[in-house]
Amino acid sequence: MERLESYVQGQWRAGQGAPHVLVNPATEEPLAETSTDGLDLAAAAVFARAEGGPALRALTFAERGELLRAMSRAAHAERDALIDVAIRNGGNTRGDAKFDVDGAIGTLAYYADLGAQLGDARLLTDGDGVQLGRSPRFFGQHILVPRPGVAVHINAFNFPAWGLAEKAACALLAGMPVITKPATSTALVALRLMKIFTERAPLPRGALSFVAGPPGDLLAHLGGEDVLAFTGSSATGAALRLMPCLAREGVRVNVEADSLNGAVLGPDAAPGSETYAMFLRDVARDITQKAGQKCTAIRRIFAPAAVVDAVRDDLVDRLRDARVGDPTQDGVTVGPLTTADQLRGVRAGIERLAADAAVALGGTGPFEAIGVPPGKGYFVPPTLLVASGPDGAPAAHEHEVFGPVATLFPYDGGAAHAVALLRRGRGSLVCSVYSDDRAFAAEVLLGVAPYHGRVLLGSEKIADQAPGPGTVLPQTIHGGPGRAGGGEELGGLRGLHFYSQRTAVQGSRPVLEAILGAKGEPRPAPAKP
Amino acid sequence: MERLESYVQGQWRAGQGAPHVLVNPATEEPLAETSTDGLDLAAAAVFARAEGGPALRALTFAERGELLRAMSRAAHAERDALIDVAIRNGGNTRGDAKFDVDGAIGTLAYYADLGAQLGDARLLTDGDGVQLGRSPRFFGQHILVPRPGVAVHINAFNFPAWGLAEKAACALLAGMPVITKPATSTALVALRLMKIFTERAPLPRGALSFVAGPPGDLLAHLGGEDVLAFTGSSATGAALRLMPCLAREGVRVNVEADSLNGAVLGPDAAPGSETYAMFLRDVARDITQKAGQKCTAIRRIFAPAAVVDAVRDDLVDRLRDARVGDPTQDGVTVGPLTTADQLRGVRAGIERLAADAAVALGGTGPFEAIGVPPGKGYFVPPTLLVASGPDGAPAAHEHEVFGPVATLFPYDGGAAHAVALLRRGRGSLVCSVYSDDRAFAAEVLLGVAPYHGRVLLGSEKIADQAPGPGTVLPQTIHGGPGRAGGGEELGGLRGLHFYSQRTAVQGSRPVLEAILGAKGEPRPAPAKP
Repeated sequence: MERLESYVQGQWRAGQGAPHVLVNPATEEPLAETSTDGLDLAAAAVFARAEGGPALRALTFAERGELLRAMSRAAHAERDALIDVAIRNGGNTRGDAKFDVDGAIGTLAYYADLGAQLGDARLLTDGDGVQLGRSPRFFGQHILVPRPGVAVHINAFNFPAWGLAEKAACALLAGMPVITKPATSTALVALRLMKIFTERAPLPRGALSFVAGPPGDLLAHLGGEDVLAFTGSSATGAALRLMPCLAREGVRVNVEADSLNGAVLGPDAAPGSETYAMFLRDVARDITQKAGQKCTAIRRIFAPAAVVDAVRDDLVDRLRDARVGDPTQDGVTVGPLTTADQLRGVRAGIERLAADAAVALGGTGPFEAIGVPPGKGYFVPPTLLVASGPDGAPAAHEHEVFGPVATLFPYDGGAAHAVALLRRGRGSLVCSVYSDDRAFAAEVLLGVAPYHGRVLLGSEKIADQAPGPGTVLPQTIHGGPGRAGGGEELGGLRGLHFYSQRTAVQGSRPVLEAILGAKGEPRPAPAKP
Repeated sequence: MERLESYVQGQWRAGQGAPHVLVNPATEEPLAETSTDGLDLAAAAVFARAEGGPALRALTFAERGELLRAMSRAAHAERDALIDVAIRNGGNTRGDAKFDVDGAIGTLAYYADLGAQLGDARLLTDGDGVQLGRSPRFFGQHILVPRPGVAVHINAFNFPAWGLAEKAACALLAGMPVITKPATSTALVALRLMKIFTERAPLPRGALSFVAGPPGDLLAHLGGEDVLAFTGSSATGAALRLMPCLAREGVRVNVEADSLNGAVLGPDAAPGSETYAMFLRDVARDITQKAGQKCTAIRRIFAPAAVVDAVRDDLVDRLRDARVGDPTQDGVTVGPLTTADQLRGVRAGIERLAADAAVALGGTGPFEAIGVPPGKGYFVPPTLLVASGPDGAPAAHEHEVFGPVATLFPYDGGAAHAVALLRRGRGSLVCSVYSDDRAFAAEVLLGVAPYHGRVLLGSEKIADQAPGPGTVLPQTIHGGPGRAGGGEELGGLRGLHFYSQRTAVQGSRPVLEAILGAKGEPRPAPAKP
């Protein structure tokens, strides 16, 4: 059986001791094993800081962008191989696997372009300069410079390629070396991607390291120069924040965690309309794609009471066609959950939701997956629950069920009511509003914006080209307040801020202009696609 | 004796139980007492969120700016009374007291002007819009909206007026209600300021509350909508970050903590030059002003080895003229430390530094303060230590002695050496470089920027108008990485970000422009003085 290696101190190295076993979640067949015991992760961090950091900081943004372009191209050249691994190790359908792999390729390419736009600079100016004294001579200018430590990335199991790539793209373009750690369960995809990078798009020594499994004592070796970006559960996010070593050292931490994303159907978007069709499509996609294992997936659906039965029936119609099973089998459209733990958690979550809601489709009853030996695989069928009223199913506002599961609520059709229900999620990554009534859309937007990192206003005009709320675009920020962790990633240049120190420089205007101008800094270009 | 009251739920209310006693630190005479026991601080937070938040969010930036202008004018009208209280309760000289009170007045006025510039908007757009789809129709725009909770401010004892005002200015302009808590020891100044606001510049109900002493269980009632901004010691900052209630709820926390700010004399700035004089002036000011109790004060002084004796002698000459004593006495130029605890801490800190450095002036020996009964008052004389070499006095890179104390180091005159020494502070609020050699200034700046929130490049051209590194200007950010807490305040509009949620809005371009344009949002104006 393949034994995964970690890439630390510029070398592939295997851990020792009892391994973790990675399986195919459709068949439970073991695929690989990994251990990180015995790896000197403190030395890995020292190496990244000492070798990777200076090498990256010596490059211009354009040069860093070229590294990202090479990574994007290398992944694209091996796209089919990556997709095959994602199908086996992630339980992904081919479509799911493409979504993850193409997300990685596209995000790397986007930040490569951004690097090219920033050109020959090595640091960014932030905003305009300001006069500070009585005369224009005493002047201030903010700049953004690479943080001098290492960026540790702890990624989630659901997007082993995209998660690795989007965090690495921002850090590397900002000039910070990375130690990336995939979730152990889907580390095979991340490992393949990492192998492709080291073979086909080599980075400066120490710029990108890879820990193929548990992070051991790595976090205890971080200091005030370093950053930690985590994607995963709220509970783990809070536990990381509560690590005394991180708090004491002032390590900068970004958390992207649980989210009870809502979708609101506007009262004007009648069944049969383009906007209604967009709403149905987005909801059904988020329940089935990646078997619902997207942090941005719609979990709560709000429809005007008058049409809630029609919405339920239309969703059940669409979801009933889903073919759940081993994604290597022809015609399968929904794969398994990724691990046995996830299966237990999702089944328990459905029971919790179903205590106060009707199961319109799916649920935890007996269920036969396509092309799988009986009793094998971590399958859950698409499951739609319906709250008896707007205040029914309270658990659906509190508990993220990370699978092909969503809850439908009726609301009174007024924007204020939709806002009140959306807010009950206490901070989400994204919500989506489907309406061609601008007054309604505006009221919902302004009411919910403080509780969300992103709001998608779905309407007839963009029904044919918006990818839905579940897709994270690099141009706009990803993250959300409160329960969602309070973090922020991507968003064009904004994604570099976490990896940068903002510094105010005060001095004589000609001196500042000579120093900062001499480095060839352009004003940071606005993020363009 | 005066009993301080808190201002919560729109009313002045006294706490019960055993009081804390506030004293005059020059004489140890009791001045007032306070308790917050029995105050319902959970209800205070609910009131601020329910009453203050909506009232502020209903105002435009210009209207919020007018509130700040009224606060600034009210404080200015009562300036003399405030100064008198600061002298008695803070141990401030008249100059020290003006520095604090005028800092408050000026920062409020600065943010009032910013509000006027932002005009009729209620939210800010953040950056340019971006095309997201194949056609320009699918569009994205980031906005900044007020967070819907309450901002809790925990201020330090050294700037009871300025600290309250600068944090409140940013939060209120951003549209967030505030509960402000001064350090108990100097709460009398903050209380007077708060009384002035309630009497002469009344804000909407719940917009600004005041807790005159320990915060009790207030922090346990914060949630993901709320924010906490703390200024004080690293240890307390880390303890706050480790409160499970804050981490679990995803409360946004800003910490501004210890800082071992450095000042570097360039090899070109010879004794007798304007730039050398500026350096001496800044160092001597930071040792004596507020008896050295400024988070931004220079603690480490780096001079080329060839001139280190001259620097020592020149500093001793200047500092020897300081007249330390009761600031109500004529001619006194340096007051006491603020509390008995601070006195103990500073004396212990000097002993720690002196274990590896020579005491050129001051120290912990017997010492007579002017106009004070023998043995009374928390006095420490201006104290200059000199390291035997660049690697001497290691404690001076590790331990902040929060009094009229600094340590002088020789260095080899090269920028690389200066950078290496400055970095040993492991993250500071500010450093200052005194040189008319642009190559030297540039190399130090670029080497230390990642370790500092602010860098002042002192030079001949600005010697007559730069206020020195110890003065926090609202136009430029205040905060620093690592040991300094990793926070960021002020910096013009940047100061509003902490109190705002950044939200990406995606949708049809005409819809976005109609909604965001209809609210009359201008592009945020660059921060101007």
